[in-house]
This record gives sequence, structure tokens and C-alpha cells, in this order.
Amino acid sequence: MVDHFKHPIFPKLIKWAALSCLIGVLAGAASAAFLLALDAVTHWRGQYRWLIWLLPVAGLLVAWMYRRYDAGSDAGINLLINETRTPANTIPLRMAPLVLFGTLTSHLFGASVGREGTAVQMGGALSDQLSKLFKVSNHTRTLIITAGMAAGFASVFGTPIAGAIWGIEVVALTGMAASALLPCLLSAVIAHFVTLGLGAHHMHYAAGAMPALGAMPLLLVVVAGVAFGLAARAFCMAIHGFSALYKRWVANSLLRPVIGGMVIVLFAVTVNSADRYLGLGLPVLQAAFSGQVAPQDFLVKLVMTAWSIASGFKGGEVTPLFFVGATLGHVLAPLLQLPPPFLAAVGLAAVFAGASNTPLASTILAIELFGFDIAAYAACGCAISYLVSGRRGIYAAQRLLYPKLG
Amino acid sequence: MVDHFKHPIFPKLIKWAALSCLIGVLAGAASAAFLLALDAVTHWRGQYRWLIWLLPVAGLLVAWMYRRYDAGSDAGINLLINETRTPANTIPLRMAPLVLFGTLTSHLFGASVGREGTAVQMGGALSDQLSKLFKVSNHTRTLIITAGMAAGFASVFGTPIAGAIWGIEVVALTGMAASALLPCLLSAVIAHFVTLGLGAHHMHYAAGAMPALGAMPLLLVVVAGVAFGLAARAFCMAIHGFSALYKRWVANSLLRPVIGGMVIVLFAVTVNSADRYLGLGLPVLQAAFSGQVAPQDFLVKLVMTAWSIASGFKGGEVTPLFFVGATLGHVLAPLLQLPPPFLAAVGLAAVFAGASNTPLASTILAIELFGFDIAAYAACGCAISYLVSGRRGIYAAQRLLYPKLG
Repeated sequence: MVDHFKHPIFPKLIKWAALSCLIGVLAGAASAAFLLALDAVTHWRGQYRWLIWLLPVAGLLVAWMYRRYDAGSDAGINLLINETRTPANTIPLRMAPLVLFGTLTSHLFGASVGREGTAVQMGGALSDQLSKLFKVSNHTRTLIITAGMAAGFASVFGTPIAGAIWGIEVVALTGMAASALLPCLLSAVIAHFVTLGLGAHHMHYAAGAMPALGAMPLLLVVVAGVAFGLAARAFCMAIHGFSALYKRWVANSLLRPVIGGMVIVLFAVTVNSADRYLGLGLPVLQAAFSGQVAPQDFLVKLVMTAWSIASGFKGGEVTPLFFVGATLGHVLAPLLQLPPPFLAAVGLAAVFAGASNTPLASTILAIELFGFDIAAYAACGCAISYLVSGRRGIYAAQRLLYPKLG
Repeated sequence: MVDHFKHPIFPKLIKWAALSCLIGVLAGAASAAFLLALDAVTHWRGQYRWLIWLLPVAGLLVAWMYRRYDAGSDAGINLLINETRTPANTIPLRMAPLVLFGTLTSHLFGASVGREGTAVQMGGALSDQLSKLFKVSNHTRTLIITAGMAAGFASVFGTPIAGAIWGIEVVALTGMAASALLPCLLSAVIAHFVTLGLGAHHMHYAAGAMPALGAMPLLLVVVAGVAFGLAARAFCMAIHGFSALYKRWVANSLLRPVIGGMVIVLFAVTVNSADRYLGLGLPVLQAAFSGQVAPQDFLVKLVMTAWSIASGFKGGEVTPLFFVGATLGHVLAPLLQLPPPFLAAVGLAAVFAGASNTPLASTILAIELFGFDIAAYAACGCAISYLVSGRRGIYAAQRLLYPKLG
């Protein structure tokens, strides 16, 4: 729990909820104004063909404006990327009107240019004014600029999740990740089809009807995400706690599964319907989507699995984590007035995301299992769960190089 | 072109195609055997309830097997992660049978455990034997182990893309990326809805019917991906080349857009239907999905945009890159016997991925624009394009910390 006190995550969550709202409103409003104006100038260019003759003059005007009012902002997106890496000065606010004017002029008179640069620069420059206003740390400032760029990209193309990943990818330089993409992807796709071809099959779960994307259901998923993250945290703490107990009291590791096994036998023969919690638990997992589950299911499975793993039994943690997340989501759903199968689907991904520190992969897993409509909900639930679950995931060798939030 | 000769990418592509096939077959076959056996033991446990009494003995047996035959493989996934970071010894092959036996025994007698650990360890351990066999470099070995883990995860859950990202995320420690996920995502979603709420709208493109996922269409997309990557490379080289020309011959940067603008005017008044290539070019982009485009469209737009940007006009490169990718995909489609709107969709994402070095974000962009069915094709096209496009993207400040492929 120490890291929780040293780096309290809840105030950070509130801080980022507020900052993200401000960034989103700034970047979104700028993109809207830009897109509407761009429609107009593109329309005019089609209507008044003689405008093209003025392109050289228009270019001169834009260049002169930049020379006159520029403070390094001619570097555009490169200035933003550099500032996230070696922070020096606040991005000049004038970057936003300069690039807006420059772009509209370029389009009105017929240059062949795009629009993402404009939206991204406006998003980054406007957001960075918040860094100055709130006097934030360098790490927070990096995240603010990245989020502003992401918000600009997202709103100019109408692709929010791609925008978010784009911001991360273009700034955080995931060179290693990118170079692993092709080997991992090819191997994964081939392995998948080999497995299917050899006659193995996978269970299908249906998340059912999902709420239309909006602020209210997203907020409710954020609340549930905190619960999912705490469940992931409890799971990791239970595994590490049971392991520590064993190390302290049972020196001979051969005896650990014997003792562990006896406790499970005792549980199985005394508790009614203990069968629910043995093995993978697929029937209960299934029931979380198309039936009923008990309120204590998630907790019993969590403890049983942590105990089995710590005792030395083999297999891994993920399907039991799916069980924990889906049953927890199912029982939380009525409290949050969300459909149980839907929140079971989000919980399945989010508890896994928190326990294994893989919010991105868990989001995509949810999309693959339940369809693309779950994307934004799964991403929110997984990101929150990842943040709340603490630094110590189920893979001890994993090293997190950065704090989980700025 | 220097880096192209120093680090030739095509032999690497062929190497990784072969390695990925081997890894995929090894991991996929292991997962299939495991899943089928797991079904059987789970069935037996339900049938013979008395098996639970033997759990302590079974645990002892598993622990003894590990003590007797182990070579560090009890560390499981942690051993794999550590080996990718500080390579020391080949993962012992016996990790695979040990964890398989241990898991099946754990499940047969009723421990509450999962299955991903088993599939991931088998995938990693089997794949790493290829590293020994082919005596590869450490960087290649890291990628082989990561791909093996990804393939194991993908095939045990039937989620190939999530498996690929999971391997990357769990090994490559995208701490920075993960800590930026929530700020970027929240800001992006809010910005998106603010933009929509303020009355701006986005054009929709329909990728139409897509080929059923399979080896042949994937291979064709890989071939097209090379073309998309070369287009991205040509675009970046054209921008950098035109910029260098300007720097050398036009010292006063105010004059550059004047000269640039005059060339565009000349082009516009002499070339028939030059209007297609001015501004964003949305009508032609639209036509790539629901009409006809000309074979030269992609090339003219590529040159016009590079020239406009290098001359100092503002706006960015992405929508023109969409234009280049979609029209190139449209005209390549008949040659590869793929539906033109489908390959236009892949090209839209892939040329962008190559030029901006963001294969992951581009894949998600394709999913958001065209639906989830395009996921595997877009991921392949974007990854290939990223690999072929060279080190120098449109954002000069971006630094790639790793070679693009091992």
C-alpha cells in the first residue's frame, strides 16, 4: 500500500478528469471552428476559380505573418514533439491563430495541403497554456501537450481512439513496440488459425445491447473501472501475500502445493457449490453474460485463484481474472443502472488490464470478443483499472519505467 | 537511400515472414493440443467428483517435477520477460512440457487456475529454440520470444490482434504510453464530441465488402503494403528534397511560397482537371471508395502536396496522404484481384502509417473509419508500410530508438 500513499492516484484521477475536459473542450472547439471555416473556403475556391491566381500572394502573406509574429511555431508539430522531450518554453499561444490563418489561406487559394497539422498544433498550443496557468511539473506538461495533440487529431478526423493512440505513438516513440508489431502480428494470426484448424474452439460471450456512446455511461464505466482496478489490486496483493506467507512458514516448496491442495479440498467438501470456483470456471463466466451470478462469486474466485497460484499450481491467472471481472461487472451493473452483460464485458477486460498492466491489449481484446461498439467503454474501463491497480502486477519481472499518471 | 542499403528491409521481411510462420505453427499447435486436452480434463473433473481429494498429491507431483527437471522455468512468464531484456540463456525447451503437464494436472484435480500462462510459456519456449537453431542476434531474439508469447496468447483466447499487442505491451514496457493513455483518451473523446456538438461533421467512406480473413488476401495486402510504404517513402523524400532545393536556391524564405504558388498556378491553368489536386481533395478521396480514379492521381497529389508543404503552405499532410493511399489502393486492386474500395481503405491507413511512423494508430484509425473487419488487413498493411517507408518520416523531430525490424 506504500506506493499508494506516496503517489496517491485518486487526486491524480480527478486532476486529469478536469484537465482532460479543458483540453477536450479547447481542442474540440478549435477543430469545429476550423472544420466549418474550411468547408466555407473550400466551397468559395470551387465557386471563384480566379482565386488560384492569388496563390503566390497568399503564400507571401502567410510567410510574412509567420516571420512577423512567429516564436518558433513555424516548426509546428516538431516544436510540440521537441517540447515533450526537452521542455523549455511554453508553446506560444499564437501558434494556434497563425496556423489557422495560414491553413485557411492555403486552402482558399488552392494549395494542396491537409488539415491535421492545424488541428494538432491548435490542440497542443491551446492545451499548453494550461501548463503555464497551473504551473505543472514537466511530466504532467508532457502529458498535457500529448493529450492536446491527440484531441486535435481525434476531433479533426472524428476518430477518437485512433487520435489517442496517435498522440501516444508519435510522441512516446514506441520504436520497440513498432518494430515488434509485424513479428507479433504475423505470428499471432498464424497461431490463431493453426489452433482453429486443429479443431480447438473458443467460447463466445455476448455483451448484448450497449448504451449509446455518451458522457453519462462513460462516467458510470469510469466509476466501475475504479472497482475493477481495486479488484485487480486485491488479486495481486493476495498472490504476493500468500506467496510471502508460504515463504515464511513453509520452507520446503514441495510441501506448499500439498498444504494448498488440502485447503482447497476442505473448501470443496464443506462449501456448497464450491465447484463453481474450481478450474477455469467457464460455466460461471458464461452465466455472467447470459444468466445470473452471485454477489460473492468474484471475491471467492479471486481468493481461490490467488491461493492456487501461490501454492504452486500451474496455468496462469487470466481466465480466472476474466471470471472475476465479468462477475463483478454483472453484480455492479444494477447499482449503476447499466445492462449486466455489458458491464460484465467491460469488467472482463478491465480487471485483466489492471492485473497485467496492459490497458491497450485489454481494450483490443474486448473489441475482438465483443465488437467495436465497446471500444470507448473498454478503453476507459481498462485505463482507469490500470491506474488504480497499483504498481505491482501479476508479472513481477515487468518494470514500469514511468509513473502511471503524471 | 543510404539507410536502405545499410539495413536492407526486404531480406528482413522475408526472414520475418518465415520466422513468423514457424512461430505461429509451433505456438498454435501447442495451444490446440493444450485446449483440447484441457476440455477433456475439465470434463473428467466434472464426471469424477472424487478427483478433488487427490489435489494435494497432484500438487506435490507437479512441484517435484519442477524441482527435478526445472532449469529456471518455474519463473514462467517472468523468465521470458527477463530474457527479452537481459539475454542470457535459451529458454529451456522443457518449460513447454512441464507447464503443460503442470496445468493439466492442476485443472484435472480442481485447482482454480487459468490457461494463458501455459500457452504463453509454450509459445515463448518453443519459439526461442529457433533463436538457438538460427543463431540470431539479441535484438532478433527479443522479437522472437515476444512474438512467441503473443502467438501463445492469441491462440489460446482466439484474439489474434489483442495477442499481438499484449506481447508488445507486456514486454516492451510501454510505461510512457500507458501513462498517457487516460489523458489522451479522455481528451480525445471529449474533443470529438465537442466538435460534433458544435456542428462540424466528417465525411464517411465505405470500404464495402471485405474478403474473408485468410492467408491469400493477407498476402496480397502485404504486397500492396510494400507499394504503400514506397509511396510514403517517396512522399517524405519529396518533401525533404524540395525543402533542400529551396534552402539551397531561395535564401529568403518569404520568396519560397511566392515561387511555389506560381508553379501551382501554372499547373492549375495548364493541366486539365488540375482542380482534383488542390486543397484536401475530398471529392477524389470519396471517388476512390464509390467511383473511379485515374492511375496517376496518387502520384500527382503526392508531388503537389510535397511541393505545397515545402513551399511553406500550412495545413499538414494527412488528408493528402489519405488521398494518395486510397487512390493508389484503388488502382492496385484490380492487379491483385481485390475489391477497389477495400484496398483503398487499407491504402488510406497504410500510406499514413508509413509517412508518420504510427502503424498502431493508423490501424485503429482504419477500424474506426471502416469497421472492425478491416483490423487484420489494416494491421498488416500498416506494419509493412511502416517497415518499408524508411527512417525519415514527415515529423523530423520524431526519433526512432530502435531499428524498424530485428
